[in-house]
Amino acid sequence: MVVKPGKYLSEINGPADLKKLKPEQLPELAEELRTFIIQNVAQNPGHLGANLGVVELSIALHYMYDSPNDKIVWDVGHQAYAHKILTGRRDQFSTNRQFKGLSGFPKTEESEHDTFGTGHSSTSISAVLGMATAEKLKENPKNRHIAVIGDGSISSGMAMEALNHVGESKANVLIILNDNGISIDEGTGAFHRYLARVTASHTYNRFKRGVWRVFKNTWIQTIANKTTTALKWTWLKKSNLFEAFDIRYFGPVDGHNIKTLVEILHDLRDIPGPRLLHIKTKKGKGFKAAEKDQVTFHSPGKYDMNTGEILKPDCAKKPPKYQVIYGKSLLSLAEQNESIYAITPAMLSGSSLNIMQAKIPERTFDVGIAEQHAVTFAAGLARAGKTPFCTIYSTFLQRAYDQIIHDVALQKLPVIFGIDRGGLVGEDGPTHHGVFDLAYLQLIPNMIIAAPMNEIQLRNLMYTAQIEPKGPFAIRYPKGNAQRADWEKDFEKMDIGKGRILSEGNEVAVLTIGATGIDAQKTVEKLKKEGINITHADIIFLKPLDEDLLHDICKNHTALVTVEDGTVKGGFGTAVAEFLIENNYQIPLKRLGVPDSFVEHGTVEELKHELGYDAEGIEKVVIQLLKSINNK
Amino acid sequence: MVVKPGKYLSEINGPADLKKLKPEQLPELAEELRTFIIQNVAQNPGHLGANLGVVELSIALHYMYDSPNDKIVWDVGHQAYAHKILTGRRDQFSTNRQFKGLSGFPKTEESEHDTFGTGHSSTSISAVLGMATAEKLKENPKNRHIAVIGDGSISSGMAMEALNHVGESKANVLIILNDNGISIDEGTGAFHRYLARVTASHTYNRFKRGVWRVFKNTWIQTIANKTTTALKWTWLKKSNLFEAFDIRYFGPVDGHNIKTLVEILHDLRDIPGPRLLHIKTKKGKGFKAAEKDQVTFHSPGKYDMNTGEILKPDCAKKPPKYQVIYGKSLLSLAEQNESIYAITPAMLSGSSLNIMQAKIPERTFDVGIAEQHAVTFAAGLARAGKTPFCTIYSTFLQRAYDQIIHDVALQKLPVIFGIDRGGLVGEDGPTHHGVFDLAYLQLIPNMIIAAPMNEIQLRNLMYTAQIEPKGPFAIRYPKGNAQRADWEKDFEKMDIGKGRILSEGNEVAVLTIGATGIDAQKTVEKLKKEGINITHADIIFLKPLDEDLLHDICKNHTALVTVEDGTVKGGFGTAVAEFLIENNYQIPLKRLGVPDSFVEHGTVEELKHELGYDAEGIEKVVIQLLKSINNK
Repeated sequence: MVVKPGKYLSEINGPADLKKLKPEQLPELAEELRTFIIQNVAQNPGHLGANLGVVELSIALHYMYDSPNDKIVWDVGHQAYAHKILTGRRDQFSTNRQFKGLSGFPKTEESEHDTFGTGHSSTSISAVLGMATAEKLKENPKNRHIAVIGDGSISSGMAMEALNHVGESKANVLIILNDNGISIDEGTGAFHRYLARVTASHTYNRFKRGVWRVFKNTWIQTIANKTTTALKWTWLKKSNLFEAFDIRYFGPVDGHNIKTLVEILHDLRDIPGPRLLHIKTKKGKGFKAAEKDQVTFHSPGKYDMNTGEILKPDCAKKPPKYQVIYGKSLLSLAEQNESIYAITPAMLSGSSLNIMQAKIPERTFDVGIAEQHAVTFAAGLARAGKTPFCTIYSTFLQRAYDQIIHDVALQKLPVIFGIDRGGLVGEDGPTHHGVFDLAYLQLIPNMIIAAPMNEIQLRNLMYTAQIEPKGPFAIRYPKGNAQRADWEKDFEKMDIGKGRILSEGNEVAVLTIGATGIDAQKTVEKLKKEGINITHADIIFLKPLDEDLLHDICKNHTALVTVEDGTVKGGFGTAVAEFLIENNYQIPLKRLGVPDSFVEHGTVEELKHELGYDAEGIEKVVIQLLKSINNK
Repeated sequence: MVVKPGKYLSEINGPADLKKLKPEQLPELAEELRTFIIQNVAQNPGHLGANLGVVELSIALHYMYDSPNDKIVWDVGHQAYAHKILTGRRDQFSTNRQFKGLSGFPKTEESEHDTFGTGHSSTSISAVLGMATAEKLKENPKNRHIAVIGDGSISSGMAMEALNHVGESKANVLIILNDNGISIDEGTGAFHRYLARVTASHTYNRFKRGVWRVFKNTWIQTIANKTTTALKWTWLKKSNLFEAFDIRYFGPVDGHNIKTLVEILHDLRDIPGPRLLHIKTKKGKGFKAAEKDQVTFHSPGKYDMNTGEILKPDCAKKPPKYQVIYGKSLLSLAEQNESIYAITPAMLSGSSLNIMQAKIPERTFDVGIAEQHAVTFAAGLARAGKTPFCTIYSTFLQRAYDQIIHDVALQKLPVIFGIDRGGLVGEDGPTHHGVFDLAYLQLIPNMIIAAPMNEIQLRNLMYTAQIEPKGPFAIRYPKGNAQRADWEKDFEKMDIGKGRILSEGNEVAVLTIGATGIDAQKTVEKLKKEGINITHADIIFLKPLDEDLLHDICKNHTALVTVEDGTVKGGFGTAVAEFLIENNYQIPLKRLGVPDSFVEHGTVEELKHELGYDAEGIEKVVIQLLKSINNK
């Protein structure tokens, strides 16, 4: 069903059209925009709650600022739907997150209004400060710079680093703190509580804003600018965390009152220097089901746009997600082993650690968007004899690379890394694909790295890792559904560094790691029916590699194929190449996986097919190899 | 000259001996310890200033706490000399930072008193919180946990993430903020100024400590604990940044008054929950020259222990450091090209950006210990059309891995990375060797990666990178002295992705990247004298690889050797291995460099020799290959 925009919205093809409306017409536009998003996302899944929360803000920003000359950066960026719709992408919005369609995140190639690509949290202030700094030395600096950042994102280390610099820089930057008290899961950390307390005591900020209103456009403001420190520390007795960073603080104000927002943005637009506007919004605003269950409606999948009922047509039949199996298995292990702790940086429900949290809260830690801290906190636990399962999405683990090397691997501390969403993740696209992990982890000394081919291996690897933990142990598993409903088998210990042969054949051996083994099995079965028998080995452990198995395979085959759901450059295939070179095997090797370029969004199936490492892609390469062998 | 410890110090073989002293004897011990450090470091170079700053603190901590049961973690760790000397390592201290000698940083293998290895900044709070969390669920938790962290380190993102968690956790953790107003260079950022302001207004904190003293060991304290928020927000009107994080703040106190320190540590020892003691210290305290020039005396090399004169016996003859050439060349380029900006995360003098800062301060940014922010700030500048030279030590760049991938490479932004101290760095050891960069960078799409063989190439690469910048460009250069004094030649444009042949020979070709080429040249010259002619190619660009050159080489040789000052696993040698596999070349390849393990401290020469990739090591491998070729 094509969603029709309302009467105002249907006329808006860019910020200029928006500016034609009168202020009193904006609330109705907000209603239309909200309905447009709810109806679209109901049938074409995406992020819902966060987008409903910033409908008024998006309108107010584009009403008061001059994008693309003024630069608006949406932190994380999954809340930029209203922004996209208002900036000329209304009619393409039905293709949101689809293969070759609109991206679910701001993307510079997509529109001049997307001034900086986002996806990971907490980058906006740094980016905006960079752009504002470039502007500063122009002859006539006039472009304004705005970062919109949530309360979860601003408490992350990277944003704090940026605040520290912004405050010193005197840059002309407006930070809008979009405070809905929740990230994807409930807010966590002392900073979160601090914001709640600030919100509870309005007086100071009202007064302060009053001061600026009085001063506006007068010589007094000039003086006030120069005496800003005095002003802050003498006149206004109550201090504030942001002012400790030398950033003027305004708010909190109701982020759904479009009249107030427009007014205050007008007032703040030309106040110089770094300033922060704290707005309070509600995730899911205007859609009852989403307001009520904010965690589910962060990214709900398909739902009934009238009732808010989540539609799960095929779900009952599907086996559970890897994430659920991980979460349930971790609870089972933690019930048996008191030294197990679980840690997540703000992905409690995403990684299913809420399952353990419900039962063993004292050993389950959601540390907020803080990957660096999460890993070294885990290292501290490990150093004290505990067995932490530090569970992080592959793409976000990039944030903790130094901590893995410097705090964990160097000290050989037994931190178990549950690397969630390893490989392509589909619709979230290039910012979120977890395709670099195998490559960037295997070059770190002391690491054990495994990728289960299926749910049973996932469980057994988790079990094995915690038996006699001696050093870092990474278990990397994909996003999405596993293979079987009856996954809850007894735990079995696995041999570290041992792979297995799944099919014995000749000429060509296909070596897989992780769930790519399932695709390879399909290829093997298909070829078998055609009378072609090839070997398939499930290597399981990227590090240490099963050299005995590899020697056997090399001695008995004329060509190898490796398949991995990750970058070929430096990945599993490269590890096998290193083995061949190291051991002087002169045997052709084809490495399948993600090429040395960033991969767009689309379904995982579409992308794997495009990149040629689904079952069909594997078959094609095997056939080619067999041909070239037979031609010799 | 063997340094003799004073009368008290000579009796101290561990914390138990220290505890035998009377409080009034501690100042004299402090004097002895200070002298011992000054005299030792004068002849056996190491970190000086920071260590002189914490002499009293180290004594007070070991006097009042029960290490190793109580866990003290020294952030960064280059200030742990007094701690080491007091905990049984006095007599080995003369081997500090030497090959097979004491490490210059805390190291768990070295002593049970080194509870957590450090080296990089800002890890201590996370580590201590992990250990304290493990302690918490014990039946009788009694071990105490202390993090000692500097004012530069605490403002880094990672520490902020930990503060956010500590405050919420209610963990029994004491954070000692060792505030000397300087990191290695002068303090920077809004937080730094905040601390200065806090220090300027004592009243609140004196009062607060008074409150706790009165309460101590009474039922009132129990109540006070429960009403802590009320206490903070009602009784004491003036707020504080740390209290915003729900961390009790005490101080500032004079960190060189050992009597006060002992008293306050006594008072704070058993106050429950997270608390922070702010002490003011002076870097270089007690050694006039070091107090006066804190930047130079951070790590001064050899000096006269009486006069403080820096001894540079061979320096006049030596060519300048790569760092100086980088800094001066960057200034030259920035003078010609107004779009060039320079960025460093707290290594202004270390990376010689102070040279550009002195002339063009408005385009030079020291953003503090904030690698994540540094890179995305640079990305923002690049997005606005500027050409940022983001200059970071290789080992610290690990902190910004996600930002390189997600903010720079994905958007193909023309950030130029000056990767300083690439390769082994010598005495700082495993936490500081820059050996992973080539491997972890080359797996990122869109990167150009080069490593100059010498100072002329360094300059020309810098020049080339900024001519028509189109995407990320990494230039990786080593720590230490270059080859020639007359390095200041005219800039010349280089061909991106083109290597060069330096010696033409047959049978064996040695491929080098970066300054390892100098070692290879020595090998080539030596073998030439023995009548053996081998080929030497200086590849220069790791990415894109010069495939034409590699094809030529492969067609005309029977064996290859790669040499790199970095990890062989996934590094340059592996890139060549990938090329061979990709192109079906069946030619033996030996990859020299750092093996898949962490490398200890020692001089660069000692380490390279040990690892077999100095000129001698290269020769050995070439001879072996020639033998095996001739035996065929």
